[in-house]
Amino acid sequence: MTKQAERINIRKITPVPLQKVTIDGGFWRKRQDTNRQMTLQIQHEQISSTGRLHAWKLDWKQGAPNQPHRFWDSDIAKWIEAAAYSLSTHPDAALERQVDEAVDLIAAAQQPDGYLNIYFTIVEPDKRWRDLKDGHELYCAGHLIEAAVAYFEATGKRLMLDVMCKYTDYIDSIFGPGEGQIRGYDGHPEIELALIKLYRATGEQRYLKLCEFFVNERGQQPYFYDLEAANSATKLAAPSNDGKQTIRNGYILPYDYYQAHLPVREQTTVEGHAVRAVYLYSGMTDLAVETKDVALQEACERLWKHMVEKRMYITGGIGSTDREERFTYDYDLPNETAYAETCASIGLIFWAHRMALHTGEGHYIDELERSLYNGTISGVSEDGSRFFYANHLEMMPAAHHFNTLKFNGSAVVSERQEWFGCACCPPNIARITASLGAYMYAQSEGEAIVLLYGDSSASLNIGSQLVRLKQTTSYPWDETVTIAVTPETAADFMVSMRIPGWCRDAQVKINGQSIDISSLMDKGYVRLARSWQQGDVIELTLAMPVEIAESHPEVRANAGRIALQRGPIVYCLEEVDNSTNLRDIALVLNEMPQARFEATLLGGITILEGSATRTSLQGWSGNLYRRSDTVPAKAKQNRNPVSFRAVPFYAWGNRGEGEMLVWLAKE
Amino acid sequence: MTKQAERINIRKITPVPLQKVTIDGGFWRKRQDTNRQMTLQIQHEQISSTGRLHAWKLDWKQGAPNQPHRFWDSDIAKWIEAAAYSLSTHPDAALERQVDEAVDLIAAAQQPDGYLNIYFTIVEPDKRWRDLKDGHELYCAGHLIEAAVAYFEATGKRLMLDVMCKYTDYIDSIFGPGEGQIRGYDGHPEIELALIKLYRATGEQRYLKLCEFFVNERGQQPYFYDLEAANSATKLAAPSNDGKQTIRNGYILPYDYYQAHLPVREQTTVEGHAVRAVYLYSGMTDLAVETKDVALQEACERLWKHMVEKRMYITGGIGSTDREERFTYDYDLPNETAYAETCASIGLIFWAHRMALHTGEGHYIDELERSLYNGTISGVSEDGSRFFYANHLEMMPAAHHFNTLKFNGSAVVSERQEWFGCACCPPNIARITASLGAYMYAQSEGEAIVLLYGDSSASLNIGSQLVRLKQTTSYPWDETVTIAVTPETAADFMVSMRIPGWCRDAQVKINGQSIDISSLMDKGYVRLARSWQQGDVIELTLAMPVEIAESHPEVRANAGRIALQRGPIVYCLEEVDNSTNLRDIALVLNEMPQARFEATLLGGITILEGSATRTSLQGWSGNLYRRSDTVPAKAKQNRNPVSFRAVPFYAWGNRGEGEMLVWLAKE
Repeated sequence: MTKQAERINIRKITPVPLQKVTIDGGFWRKRQDTNRQMTLQIQHEQISSTGRLHAWKLDWKQGAPNQPHRFWDSDIAKWIEAAAYSLSTHPDAALERQVDEAVDLIAAAQQPDGYLNIYFTIVEPDKRWRDLKDGHELYCAGHLIEAAVAYFEATGKRLMLDVMCKYTDYIDSIFGPGEGQIRGYDGHPEIELALIKLYRATGEQRYLKLCEFFVNERGQQPYFYDLEAANSATKLAAPSNDGKQTIRNGYILPYDYYQAHLPVREQTTVEGHAVRAVYLYSGMTDLAVETKDVALQEACERLWKHMVEKRMYITGGIGSTDREERFTYDYDLPNETAYAETCASIGLIFWAHRMALHTGEGHYIDELERSLYNGTISGVSEDGSRFFYANHLEMMPAAHHFNTLKFNGSAVVSERQEWFGCACCPPNIARITASLGAYMYAQSEGEAIVLLYGDSSASLNIGSQLVRLKQTTSYPWDETVTIAVTPETAADFMVSMRIPGWCRDAQVKINGQSIDISSLMDKGYVRLARSWQQGDVIELTLAMPVEIAESHPEVRANAGRIALQRGPIVYCLEEVDNSTNLRDIALVLNEMPQARFEATLLGGITILEGSATRTSLQGWSGNLYRRSDTVPAKAKQNRNPVSFRAVPFYAWGNRGEGEMLVWLAKE
Repeated sequence: MTKQAERINIRKITPVPLQKVTIDGGFWRKRQDTNRQMTLQIQHEQISSTGRLHAWKLDWKQGAPNQPHRFWDSDIAKWIEAAAYSLSTHPDAALERQVDEAVDLIAAAQQPDGYLNIYFTIVEPDKRWRDLKDGHELYCAGHLIEAAVAYFEATGKRLMLDVMCKYTDYIDSIFGPGEGQIRGYDGHPEIELALIKLYRATGEQRYLKLCEFFVNERGQQPYFYDLEAANSATKLAAPSNDGKQTIRNGYILPYDYYQAHLPVREQTTVEGHAVRAVYLYSGMTDLAVETKDVALQEACERLWKHMVEKRMYITGGIGSTDREERFTYDYDLPNETAYAETCASIGLIFWAHRMALHTGEGHYIDELERSLYNGTISGVSEDGSRFFYANHLEMMPAAHHFNTLKFNGSAVVSERQEWFGCACCPPNIARITASLGAYMYAQSEGEAIVLLYGDSSASLNIGSQLVRLKQTTSYPWDETVTIAVTPETAADFMVSMRIPGWCRDAQVKINGQSIDISSLMDKGYVRLARSWQQGDVIELTLAMPVEIAESHPEVRANAGRIALQRGPIVYCLEEVDNSTNLRDIALVLNEMPQARFEATLLGGITILEGSATRTSLQGWSGNLYRRSDTVPAKAKQNRNPVSFRAVPFYAWGNRGEGEMLVWLAKE
């Protein structure tokens, strides 16, 4: 190991795996229960009734209904993966039987050579490996691999893992720098991070090498997608002749859409399709730590910094436009047309978690938490049955109707939907919810680390010690988190707790004794070193005043506007609480809004209430415009005091169609 | 005439025709010269080079380049009409020769039965009269009729007029309530107003009756477009089964897109494709006055009121969205995505002029003037060579690039274009510019009326008197208009001058003597009755302070924002004058911006200059969001004073691509 490489995960932090964590109650227990009882079940009905499960029988014929789509394998895979995570913590024989049936179908569909893909087996068999750019073939393989690893870890059952090893071995024979091999990579990154998981589960070095191949080939010249299109056997649309763009479905797409515009180590800005981007960066981060590749790790750090400083919504949403579902340009964060795909927020969580572990820096978890509590869980309704694909930060249903309604099956909708033609988001939200425990704790040789707060218990391996941590808290509504630390025997180690970046006043007591934490802070964590013994209790108080957020002056969409936050939660105004025409409401901020827990509203939430003004409609009858050389003063007089109520952004859209607004005017 | 009917044009106001008006100098002379010397010439090149003119030879064959489009006839027609207006006031042998050549081609293309349409003669001959909904067949006929009348009136040449009478006679035989006739109407209104022009030019009652038929059939049940689609011979896409929508190019379009959702007298709100709407309403207004149809006139008044009170931009633009180029819902006036098609603003002028003449009310001309000086002439560049189709009220080129660039040939562009695939707007701006004199004056038995101000002369028939009016003015930059009134002999009559609705301080002197006009105001005009004699001079002063405009509180897009106006001119900020990030500029309005004429800028314009603030970027490096429980006060301190410069909205986009903003923030 070189000196430089030593900076990669020097603290050797590993996550505490899902199987070692239980969510005991509170915010996440409720969501996991809903996920298991409602979301996973209705999704099983969807993958059944839409023909997705049946498609593995490979008996579809041209012209028959339910023609399989290139993405279908991934929908099943993500459902299996989500179910597996749920089974890890909540055994459920009926659910396990559903998964086993799906796995049997998948195993039976595997071809003698190991190949496994519905679409390119029965719909366009002559195009196997011939449309890497848009075929999603390796993308589907990646999701199947993730599912296989998750199901093996949850149940110990090897069938799907063995199937996927065989398929991966076959893929490994097809792709590579060797004679007769394809020097290509998938248009939709995903297999990269999946190969790391498979490598870690099996110890098979070839899977790591294959990941490295895919990552390293990406963006190399001559562009693989140019070569692929130029190959007459591919029957693809020709690329445009400037070598910077390509054609799909008649649209011109730039190479950066695929993050294939530059070799990955030379990429400095987050570009293109947002989900693809964060899946790729997650795989790159994994590869960097496995191979101690400093240049790759630095590329990841650069890309992360660019994303969070220039191209991320306050909700943790990424990808500003539905055209190409992509990153656009710096500070372009329109609210009403925000795309901020649920899957992209989830991908941001994947990436943030990896970065946090490898660097030991807490700010990555701050962004993970931002995305988790806002732009991610906004993707599912309170009852777990309906989903957002795009997560707008402003909704005006009438405008939405005139601007988007005629595109049937659009991902851009004014109310959560039961399902989507491209159904990536619903099972993605299911898998992140079911696996939440895996994001909460981490461990290293002499250190127990709490990344996220929530009512839960975990068993950590600290050196040779088994240490139990038990959090008791109503976080994110409550400021206080109590953590019982229970080593097998009294021992010296560190308990590190993340102090969120949003918190300016954190108080810690150990066994009732206040601690001055200012000298104990390191990289966003308070690190408590002592001899811990059974019965020790930490009490952490994270002050959660209501706060006003502003955005960078170059964020055009938010000029003159503010957002309300409390703790990790971003708030919004809804029509149901505040009547129509939300943009006309201007907050009066000489006193701050008040927070109040409402146990019966939207599953129990803390709401904010405060003072505002609205323009009087007096004198406006029959007038669309009014002019004056002294209007501004007059306009001020014509505002009436009103009160307002804000609810957590994630909880919007559970009470019928209506207006919603995050960034608010102020007096 | 019933008593009710007497309220229609009781003052018997008629326009002073184009041939009787000369634009002597000032704002419009310059634009007319550019129109004649540049715009008409490059448009002749466009209709030649794109194959539009040649297409009249009817020798195009399937598979050949330059396939004629359904709209092409109208592009030629509008160019001829514009050229004819120009020839009315500026004889030009070369231009007249170009028109004669086009007319010869058109005449030679007429079929033996009188039929005359490029597309349905050579591209889809089996569809003649079979796709009234989307074929634009009668729409093209309407534009050819308008051109024929204009050219006849300009030159006395009858060829095109005779051709169009023959074609109209044929149309009259095809359409009607009789056995074997088609009881249909065009999906794009236009022929209605054209038939009135032809009726007035020829005195042929059948043309009036045919107009009445088209107007009255519109929106009757069962819907004609349902019948048309149900007729197997039409080979059209089936209508949707709820009877409210129809299919075009795979899109579902509602019937109100075509203003065919209700019989016209029952329509109470302006709906659908904005150009179609105002062309229809113009024809309805004409028909109402010709047939003394009070119910129809009242429908027009109702629709007008709805449009100007709920659905019109401050620039006089109409049609809020590029999806269907249509009116949307009340107070929906988004700025960045404003469609506000140039043709729609011009159609608003057509309609306003008719309403003003028939009612004698000045407020219609106020809106005509609003549209003319803002959302209409914004459609052409200062040098007359490039055009806007959509007239946004905000431009951010980078956002525009990511949101619209991949639709090639889009009408939604960030810079004026030389031409469009659907080329309706360029020749429309040419014809309104060339015919501007026809909108300036009106006359009735005992009254000379000045509708619009501008350096010009006119000959009016007031009873048996010929009266010359000569305006000398630098309007719209200057507040003062001098009008020399020259009757043949001294005589008693009225000189009425419109006092614009935007003007709160109008002063009048006759022969240097101040007049108290308060008792002389009637329907927006100051009416000066006296014995006028040669040498009489009126001096009118219309105070033009810089003014602040607000919009109705329900106009969501403009919440908290103001616009700058002076006289009829709406202003905007451009990047070239104010740097980037225009939304961050907040005007300081304790003193009003100052107006200053800049003779060398953009052909000579009055600019506005004043004070504003901008957010300091200090402390923002590396931060996208900032939170605090006391931010608002701090935010205020972090604003730096700057000056700003505003230019007329119509003149934006003449100095390279850049940001533009009409509705501004204020401190």
